Amino acid sequence: MTDSPNPTNQFDKKAQAWSARFSEPVSDLVKRYTASVDFDKRLARFDIQGSLAHATMLATTGVISADDLAAIDKGMQQILQEIDVGTFTWLLDLEDVHLNIEKRLVELIGDAGKRLHTGRSRNDQVATDIRLWLRSEIDVSLELITALRRALAQVALEHHDTIMPGFTHLQVAQPVTFGHHLLAYSEMFARDAERLTDCRKRCNRLPLGAAALAGTSYPIDREQVATLLGFDSVCRNSLDAVSDRDFAIEFCAAVSLVMTHISRLSEELILWMSPRIGFIDLADRFCTGSSIMPQKKNPDVPELARGKTGRVNGNLIALLTLMKGQPLAYNKDNQEDKEGLFDSADTLRDTLTIFADMIGGIRVRKQAMRDAALMGFSTATDLADYLVKKGLPFRDAHETVALAVRHCEEQQCDLADLTLEEMRKFNTSIDSDVFSVLTLEGSVSSRAHIGGTAPARVKAEAERVLAELA
Amino acid sequence: MTDSPNPTNQFDKKAQAWSARFSEPVSDLVKRYTASVDFDKRLARFDIQGSLAHATMLATTGVISADDLAAIDKGMQQILQEIDVGTFTWLLDLEDVHLNIEKRLVELIGDAGKRLHTGRSRNDQVATDIRLWLRSEIDVSLELITALRRALAQVALEHHDTIMPGFTHLQVAQPVTFGHHLLAYSEMFARDAERLTDCRKRCNRLPLGAAALAGTSYPIDREQVATLLGFDSVCRNSLDAVSDRDFAIEFCAAVSLVMTHISRLSEELILWMSPRIGFIDLADRFCTGSSIMPQKKNPDVPELARGKTGRVNGNLIALLTLMKGQPLAYNKDNQEDKEGLFDSADTLRDTLTIFADMIGGIRVRKQAMRDAALMGFSTATDLADYLVKKGLPFRDAHETVALAVRHCEEQQCDLADLTLEEMRKFNTSIDSDVFSVLTLEGSVSSRAHIGGTAPARVKAEAERVLAELA
Amino acid sequence: MTDSPNPTNQFDKKAQAWSARFSEPVSDLVKRYTASVDFDKRLARFDIQGSLAHATMLATTGVISADDLAAIDKGMQQILQEIDVGTFTWLLDLEDVHLNIEKRLVELIGDAGKRLHTGRSRNDQVATDIRLWLRSEIDVSLELITALRRALAQVALEHHDTIMPGFTHLQVAQPVTFGHHLLAYSEMFARDAERLTDCRKRCNRLPLGAAALAGTSYPIDREQVATLLGFDSVCRNSLDAVSDRDFAIEFCAAVSLVMTHISRLSEELILWMSPRIGFIDLADRFCTGSSIMPQKKNPDVPELARGKTGRVNGNLIALLTLMKGQPLAYNKDNQEDKEGLFDSADTLRDTLTIFADMIGGIRVRKQAMRDAALMGFSTATDLADYLVKKGLPFRDAHETVALAVRHCEEQQCDLADLTLEEMRKFNTSIDSDVFSVLTLEGSVSSRAHIGGTAPARVKAEAERVLAELA
Amino acid sequence: MTDSPNPTNQFDKKAQAWSARFSEPVSDLVKRYTASVDFDKRLARFDIQGSLAHATMLATTGVISADDLAAIDKGMQQILQEIDVGTFTWLLDLEDVHLNIEKRLVELIGDAGKRLHTGRSRNDQVATDIRLWLRSEIDVSLELITALRRALAQVALEHHDTIMPGFTHLQVAQPVTFGHHLLAYSEMFARDAERLTDCRKRCNRLPLGAAALAGTSYPIDREQVATLLGFDSVCRNSLDAVSDRDFAIEFCAAVSLVMTHISRLSEELILWMSPRIGFIDLADRFCTGSSIMPQKKNPDVPELARGKTGRVNGNLIALLTLMKGQPLAYNKDNQEDKEGLFDSADTLRDTLTIFADMIGGIRVRKQAMRDAALMGFSTATDLADYLVKKGLPFRDAHETVALAVRHCEEQQCDLADLTLEEMRKFNTSIDSDVFSVLTLEGSVSSRAHIGGTAPARVKAEAERVLAELA
Repeated sequence: MTDSPNPTNQFDKKAQAWSARFSEPVSDLVKRYTASVDFDKRLARFDIQGSLAHATMLATTGVISADDLAAIDKGMQQILQEIDVGTFTWLLDLEDVHLNIEKRLVELIGDAGKRLHTGRSRNDQVATDIRLWLRSEIDVSLELITALRRALAQVALEHHDTIMPGFTHLQVAQPVTFGHHLLAYSEMFARDAERLTDCRKRCNRLPLGAAALAGTSYPIDREQVATLLGFDSVCRNSLDAVSDRDFAIEFCAAVSLVMTHISRLSEELILWMSPRIGFIDLADRFCTGSSIMPQKKNPDVPELARGKTGRVNGNLIALLTLMKGQPLAYNKDNQEDKEGLFDSADTLRDTLTIFADMIGGIRVRKQAMRDAALMGFSTATDLADYLVKKGLPFRDAHETVALAVRHCEEQQCDLADLTLEEMRKFNTSIDSDVFSVLTLEGSVSSRAHIGGTAPARVKAEAERVLAELA
Repeated sequence: MTDSPNPTNQFDKKAQAWSARFSEPVSDLVKRYTASVDFDKRLARFDIQGSLAHATMLATTGVISADDLAAIDKGMQQILQEIDVGTFTWLLDLEDVHLNIEKRLVELIGDAGKRLHTGRSRNDQVATDIRLWLRSEIDVSLELITALRRALAQVALEHHDTIMPGFTHLQVAQPVTFGHHLLAYSEMFARDAERLTDCRKRCNRLPLGAAALAGTSYPIDREQVATLLGFDSVCRNSLDAVSDRDFAIEFCAAVSLVMTHISRLSEELILWMSPRIGFIDLADRFCTGSSIMPQKKNPDVPELARGKTGRVNGNLIALLTLMKGQPLAYNKDNQEDKEGLFDSADTLRDTLTIFADMIGGIRVRKQAMRDAALMGFSTATDLADYLVKKGLPFRDAHETVALAVRHCEEQQCDLADLTLEEMRKFNTSIDSDVFSVLTLEGSVSSRAHIGGTAPARVKAEAERVLAELA
Repeated sequence: MTDSPNPTNQFDKKAQAWSARFSEPVSDLVKRYTASVDFDKRLARFDIQGSLAHATMLATTGVISADDLAAIDKGMQQILQEIDVGTFTWLLDLEDVHLNIEKRLVELIGDAGKRLHTGRSRNDQVATDIRLWLRSEIDVSLELITALRRALAQVALEHHDTIMPGFTHLQVAQPVTFGHHLLAYSEMFARDAERLTDCRKRCNRLPLGAAALAGTSYPIDREQVATLLGFDSVCRNSLDAVSDRDFAIEFCAAVSLVMTHISRLSEELILWMSPRIGFIDLADRFCTGSSIMPQKKNPDVPELARGKTGRVNGNLIALLTLMKGQPLAYNKDNQEDKEGLFDSADTLRDTLTIFADMIGGIRVRKQAMRDAALMGFSTATDLADYLVKKGLPFRDAHETVALAVRHCEEQQCDLADLTLEEMRKFNTSIDSDVFSVLTLEGSVSSRAHIGGTAPARVKAEAERVLAELA
Repeated sequence: MTDSPNPTNQFDKKAQAWSARFSEPVSDLVKRYTASVDFDKRLARFDIQGSLAHATMLATTGVISADDLAAIDKGMQQILQEIDVGTFTWLLDLEDVHLNIEKRLVELIGDAGKRLHTGRSRNDQVATDIRLWLRSEIDVSLELITALRRALAQVALEHHDTIMPGFTHLQVAQPVTFGHHLLAYSEMFARDAERLTDCRKRCNRLPLGAAALAGTSYPIDREQVATLLGFDSVCRNSLDAVSDRDFAIEFCAAVSLVMTHISRLSEELILWMSPRIGFIDLADRFCTGSSIMPQKKNPDVPELARGKTGRVNGNLIALLTLMKGQPLAYNKDNQEDKEGLFDSADTLRDTLTIFADMIGGIRVRKQAMRDAALMGFSTATDLADYLVKKGLPFRDAHETVALAVRHCEEQQCDLADLTLEEMRKFNTSIDSDVFSVLTLEGSVSSRAHIGGTAPARVKAEAERVLAELA
């Protein structure tokens, strides 16, 4: 120990961890403007986790004593408990989650607490905290995506042979099954899960040890800390480690894609619930009414989810703009990385949770779907394919059917309503076997290859997905 | 009054204003997901202001009685007070600010409170609230911009003849005065004020009376309400009135430009404070230190402000994305309009307030500025202009000086260090009067036209701005 | 004139206007990367217009001779013609539109051409060109918006009493007229026109005279140039003048709002053309078919227009990102301002032109609209209002009707299908006059205030708009 | 073959592949608005590659004959050659790259050409083309990133012990080596390469076989086509396959991150080249001059690259906005996916190519770097660490050094300028060994752990990177 006559302790006398050099305090507004504790206190649990791993390593390498480590551990357990029960006092004066916790630790355990910050800086500390937090969020999100995909596959299995019109350009195109339609979303969310898993790899690297920007002169063991915290590896450049926010941006981009998929599904749910279409009904618990129109039942949840695409895209742009043109290494700009990131993560969590529940509660109006599939010449392509099998080049078959459709439109009838004789006016190779290809069932069953809409194929796919996610 | 045997009162029995039609309550998560009271309660004051104007009109046109109006007014005053002192209880179950206040009103005054919602809907009500709130925010922002411009002009006046290097491409270009440099920002913020004023015009129109989407069958007087609330006019189409959020987007776009200007100014403040440049020092109260490096004094405020450009751009994109492809009229998506809007307004307010204070506290290091202006051949253009006045076409003069600069670079000297004889090697028309055009003072003074950097001109401009803003 | 032995002429010997100082040429890729002539040559006409005004001023103030001016004018007329007929040779080596034109001028007229660049720089020159170009684009856009609004008002007038369901949340809300619905868009585009007009004010200020960044030592007369070019005023700070791109960003933001409105209208056109809804048909010339499905008629134009919202939002973000954190004055980053700006302007022009034509060609299916308005209890609010007029507080009336709707849903009937006796079970004040308020015509006619959907009001509004735009 | 009397051939009589059903041609503006051939013709090579694989499969499964396949192959080889030599005529009337090529094929080989489109649609065809194209772009980009990283590592190796100031907040923080600084960027680009590789996995799946949206009734073999085209697998849902543009968005997001890194590096290059800092010089071939200021040498390439961050962020937002809320399956909106994607890919390619070249050509001014590192108390942290090793808790050591720095600032001297006696006033444990820790060399050498800035560590890291990329 030192015999230093008067070692000033910043935590005893004043708020900031750095103020000895300054002649003037910051104003209240500046304090609020620059402080982050209001939003970064949610990192507390991860901050403590990181500090304990750091302290363990410092003790292993002899930088601090075993007694210090024990004291730090005991103090941190108490702080954790204070946070859990809500008695911990967060002070704006202490700027951020790190100094709030460290100050309390020093109050509780004295000098050992002051030794905790040896060999690290808030720059690498906060980077570590966010990565630990985000890793945990990604893990939760992956489970929620699985739940949502499972709900989709279950409804798809149930409706593997429920026929509805497939749309392109919101015009009736060809009949598909409702199960097939839902599995399209299962594919999208499967890619989302892949992307989040890829993002997790790049998130799960340890910045601690980079200190302020250049590393530290203490004999630290970064691999040990990485192992203790479950990181796959350590960041290999200290300047990069403290300023890298790629993982946050990559996560926000992945969330934007999830929410884009949610927005598409929401658009369809809203359309399908609109009375003129009436394919489905959502459970009442996902809808609200109107303060003026007593009859209303509004699909609030999908509408709101569609709207929330905006905020996650906004968060993505916010982070990209933030990092543009920043010189190395850490700049205060980076403090702006958190709120948008937190918001995207929260939006993702809530939305996935609600959708997994909502999908399972869809009530399907089979007859309305079938009626709609019978409109709009949905089997015209099947007629063209029939003609090709009779020998016409596809382009000529297409042309022939187009003329037949035009004729039917003028007659206000469907292709299947034409007599064989009338059909043969368009092409003499048409025979009585044509009528079976014009049915909805015939149409969907014929598309039995991988990715096709045939009920048997859809059933197999739904079962495959359920088995994969089991 | 009716003799209806059992007029159920939704507020007595259940939370929502619309639930009689529903067979199933929403889950807690859905409730939280769809509720807005957590963030829209900041509109309370404006909601009450709008309700009182609406009630006054209803009484004028005979839809409600004078007694009802008096009761509503009394109840609302009490509610306002409860909100002010913090005793008002906000319930998530009541979804939003409107139903929270209305329910309390009914508690306080009974049936008269239930008559308040006659002839309106939450759709036009919330649109009115946001416009009242935003108008107020714009007015505050305009004052803050004025304060900031005044601070810039005052420092500019003081430094109308302080010479610094003007940069293009961050290379020394030509000498300018520091006052001139600061007035460039005053011009930017002047345009911002114009834009906000233009936005205010489009914000200041009354949607109330549009009801849910189609107007109302009650004999309402929208002009009276507009007058009572200080709106310039009424929205002329009810479908548009309830779904229009242009004003919010236009405001966010205007804020993005203000913050873009702030980001440019911040970048310069940060550069100027960097030790190798050292043109200025910011007051300690806008800076913080480091938890590890004891010597640091960091320009936190400009860095954070630069970073906040991201969030306001993000908010803008969030709102644009939100409105994309929404069919008429109101959709629940629109509830997502508020948080981003609020955030941009708050960011603007805080940033402008701090900057107006910070600019006034800049300490200028004149000698460092002057030293820098003497580097980099900053008066080379003056030499070219000199040659033109001697008869060379500009393009040839430019070429001649470029060769002279190249020669000086090889000799590691400045143009003014060349002897007359050496100079004449580049062009024989050069005479001894050339040395005065190569001085910094000669250079800046010669640019005396409107918009030029001559000290006299800068002084006049600074005085003009101060007079305009007085 | 100078007797300089060897005044090197950059245009004779090499490409760049600045290369005398450099020892190494740029590589082909760098040349292409940094050159802008491929896209800025569309500014040629405005570049020449600006140069002629500049030359006229230089002659007036005696900086160049009358003969020089005459030569410049003659040369520029020839260049204009060469550009018009397509014989002008654009060279990547000459970087941009400015140097391409100037080099050709020197070829044509010799030394007089080399004097044109006196007292200006490419920095203020390009800023002037873009402003001239954008002003012209805004003027065209304003005319196109007028044409589109006229088309909307004409169809609205024709369908001032065509009843359709008004939707909120894509659920049937209350009946409205189709004319009323279209006039909502007329209001949106009216605001767009206001915004573009406001943007024009800030665009229409002259940067020329700012030279590179600091102004010029020549005796220039900026007001004269402003007058010659039709600018309202001059930019009052040279540093700001060369680096300001606010006008481009403000324009892009205004375009994003126009396209957001277009995206909403497009979404509705696509929905209305979908077979299950079938409210309208678009003229064949705005639709295309399918290469595989012979029956398809797809609303390509509105779909593509909806998609183009993306690109204009992207351009806006591109420009905002570009300007973030740029120090004064001009930086090369700014060259990136053009392509996005051009793209937004082109997108706006084409889209408005096509939409004005397309709206006029909408075929309305009145019966389908009416049938849809009869679904979904669209007059339930009218019943609630009826009860209020009978004395119920609105909140109780709302609750009563909600119970009646629930009863009808269980019975699968409409409110108007209930007998008087059945209705009186919900409230005894209901009388036989209730049936008239439950009709579509009764509902719409009762909303006759400003902004309401009553046919008489819609007719008057349509006529007002047509008169205003006449 | 059919004996159909009059098989109309669309390609003989009219332009579009679908026009038999339509009564009115599209206008020229609509044609231009909806056509894509101007920009999608760059997909030609991949379109042909995909068509040949499709035809091979059709022949294998017996849908077309071996003769047809041979004819198609021959025709396509000729078309490829026509495109290569520039004799191929692209027609706007034929909308897109697919129909232009198919029409030419029919011209060349007749009915066999008309059979090519059997069992596919333009929807799955264009999705396949873009994926083939993008896969190729990713492969090129990965090579370019490798080249850039190699250039960085080579310069880093050369400057593994060149000391410069490390900055945080653009204030001098601690000394680092220039090699260490450059390797930070190598780490960023390494992550970029990982991200592109991950994106490639999701890109490399075959949509062909999805036909318009539902699959096809022909006996197709999608795995065969996947193998022929080098795809890893087939898309497992036809509705998803035709509407999925995730891979494009994910690529654009990855490009935004690369360009964000480039923008940071550019910002530093620009700063380092600014005369007051003067750490480096860029080769002339990456710089340009000024049209007015003869002395200027501007770092155009990094400035422009920094600006281009805007356009790639814009492209990302454009695509995200595009996909928001689109119902399944294909909508015309999707045609807007290409231009932004192409632009991001081109920007990436050019920028990486130029930067790899530019980095290698950096001239380092070692003395300027060293001089700067001696400013700003860059070893203050080392003094604090020294005190900790003497027994002070870190927080007290930090406070002690802060007071010493404040003292030095008042005395306008450096810490190393204090006498031992003066130092001991701050803490009595300070001894004469303190002076070695205050040297730049002592400071950097002490940070020798993984990720630290010690010259030996930097050398090893640079060698590791070079070995990995060899």
